[in-house]
Amino acid sequence: AEVKKIAVIAGDGIGPEVVGEAIKVLKKTEELFGYKFELEHGLFGGIAIDEKGTPLPQETLDICQRADAVLLGAVGGPKWDNNSKELRPETGLLGIRKALGLFSNIRPAVVFDCLKDASTLKPEVLEGTDLIVVRELTGGIYFGEKFRREGAGGQEAVDTCVYNVQEIERIVRQGFEIAQKRRKKLASVDKANVLETSRLWRETVNKIAPEYPDVELEHVLVDNCAMQLLRRPSSFDVIVTENMFGDILSDEAAMLTGSIGMLSSASLGEGSFGLYEPVHGSAPDIAGQGISNPIATILSVALMFQLTFGYAEAAEVIERAVKQVLDAGHRTGDIAVDKSQAIGTTAMGDLIVAAM
Amino acid sequence: AEVKKIAVIAGDGIGPEVVGEAIKVLKKTEELFGYKFELEHGLFGGIAIDEKGTPLPQETLDICQRADAVLLGAVGGPKWDNNSKELRPETGLLGIRKALGLFSNIRPAVVFDCLKDASTLKPEVLEGTDLIVVRELTGGIYFGEKFRREGAGGQEAVDTCVYNVQEIERIVRQGFEIAQKRRKKLASVDKANVLETSRLWRETVNKIAPEYPDVELEHVLVDNCAMQLLRRPSSFDVIVTENMFGDILSDEAAMLTGSIGMLSSASLGEGSFGLYEPVHGSAPDIAGQGISNPIATILSVALMFQLTFGYAEAAEVIERAVKQVLDAGHRTGDIAVDKSQAIGTTAMGDLIVAAM
Ligand SMILES: CC(C)[C@H](C(=O)O)[C@@H](O)C(=O)O
Ligand SMILES: CC(C)[C@H](C(=O)O)[C@@H](O)C(=O)O
Repeated sequence: AEVKKIAVIAGDGIGPEVVGEAIKVLKKTEELFGYKFELEHGLFGGIAIDEKGTPLPQETLDICQRADAVLLGAVGGPKWDNNSKELRPETGLLGIRKALGLFSNIRPAVVFDCLKDASTLKPEVLEGTDLIVVRELTGGIYFGEKFRREGAGGQEAVDTCVYNVQEIERIVRQGFEIAQKRRKKLASVDKANVLETSRLWRETVNKIAPEYPDVELEHVLVDNCAMQLLRRPSSFDVIVTENMFGDILSDEAAMLTGSIGMLSSASLGEGSFGLYEPVHGSAPDIAGQGISNPIATILSVALMFQLTFGYAEAAEVIERAVKQVLDAGHRTGDIAVDKSQAIGTTAMGDLIVAAM
Repeated sequence: AEVKKIAVIAGDGIGPEVVGEAIKVLKKTEELFGYKFELEHGLFGGIAIDEKGTPLPQETLDICQRADAVLLGAVGGPKWDNNSKELRPETGLLGIRKALGLFSNIRPAVVFDCLKDASTLKPEVLEGTDLIVVRELTGGIYFGEKFRREGAGGQEAVDTCVYNVQEIERIVRQGFEIAQKRRKKLASVDKANVLETSRLWRETVNKIAPEYPDVELEHVLVDNCAMQLLRRPSSFDVIVTENMFGDILSDEAAMLTGSIGMLSSASLGEGSFGLYEPVHGSAPDIAGQGISNPIATILSVALMFQLTFGYAEAAEVIERAVKQVLDAGHRTGDIAVDKSQAIGTTAMGDLIVAAM
């Protein structure tokens, strides 16, 4: 089989541990399906600041650029929180998104059976919740001009939110296309009653909507969406929105499932290239103890197989193995009801590999 | 007693009905306490568009400007949703906030006993939830320069988010002061890892925090706050944030209480002047049927008494009357378990007046 190059960025905190288990899954897939993966490791985030003086070394970017996909653990931690902007892990994250042209962030928010009770929402409200937030990732107020100046009311800070039709079209089309493969409902979220970028967003959505006549479209104002996610989460299928709104709503959606420790995400560009990472962060408080949950990262591999490599069967094998291990009652500490029965990171990874 | 001037803006949809009941409460307060209120009515929102060709006629602004406080019902409805920007009710809302200098929006999110089960959150998570969102209301991306231009990627829209130290200080001080009168916890919400305005926000908060040593301060990133509101709502006391984040988070907070139909809000400027309104909207679908719930508007009068007039006792009398009527089992349709037993808008108003 063709060799697929994967850039592996373990990052900070629990990143290296969970990525370690995901690599075992990659190796098992090679055995089972005859696929070939070539892994190249890169430094990124806090560890790159410590070792290379920058959160995103050129070398790491080169590794990503010659790869077919990137597997990322997690970045950040209190150690770097008070650094100047250039020396913060987040700056690396924004930098890698922009440099790799990852304009689309796909965050499925699903409820895992074994975690139904972990949600703070009532089970009957949560029932059937299975949605995807498609977030624009390289535009908007994240990347517009930012500066300080002196004004009449003292120092003044400015952020600029910019979107053009092309940027809006490509992300909205992705929203429509994903919806076409699912329950065919798209909620486009904006604040068109206040923002000019949102008015252009809504016009653009309406302009291309006729090309997807099979998808039921609704426009939802961002404040209303924050409410509706709570009131009727299961009624959403695909939500497409701009960068800042997507940041907020995808976290709200993930949290309401109760399954945040199990959720994976993909950041995609043009073509099939993608960066895959668990939604949970670097969890510095439990790093190095071998107790973190590798499932979100392992499921990120399954997402990579689906979206970048087209290895649908292998993706299914991974997902089924995860389900089987959970159904058999195995839990890491974060998802265990009886913490004394919890297993560690490696044990969980091994069980999943064995179940494949 | 000194005559207090109240500008009454009934607005659209159910606005006139609910405001009608609030006026009965004002009259009853005059009787009970010897206060004197002089009401002046103004057109605003959709009805003003229809009758005067603008959502905020100068005459209405004049009425508000010579008043001590404003009581607002609700504005907007599908009839005006597709109008051009100048002819939309929201434009009037933004205009009145700016013209009256209402830089602070206070939104208490409390759980009403009788509505505990209306929330989609589990009762044990909701238990003890009683928070206030203090939202900056006349700055940020709402009021910064907005325009379109042609660019390489087609038409381009731009919104500008601007904050100066003075604007941040006055709203943050209000947050601290409200917290001092409550459980002494302030969560300041920003996106300081991405936005320059948020970095200035956080610096300013940290600069003035030492003046409020009795208040426990935490900085929370907006995406994390959207999650924490779901995970631990009762741990929040006062949340202070900028305009756009406040719009989203105050709606999320209101919805999670399950009591959104009962919540009041205040928009304050310098001094004691304030605009008071229910959090629920104009509910065009049930307008004119006499079935809407006037409690949020009646409680907005109580808030006006507290915050603008310093009529603490009268405020308490209203709040107690509402509680008494609810405890006696009376419900409007929106909060009735058995809809066939629901009473109408006027009946609810009359019962509350009688209980005063
Ligand atoms: C760390 C931060 C810059 C980042 C973002 O806001 O995009 C994070 O919250 C995310 O959602 O990936
Ligand atoms: C109608 C709209 C302009 C307004 C806002 O965003 O401020 C509303 O959502 C609110 O919160 O009062």
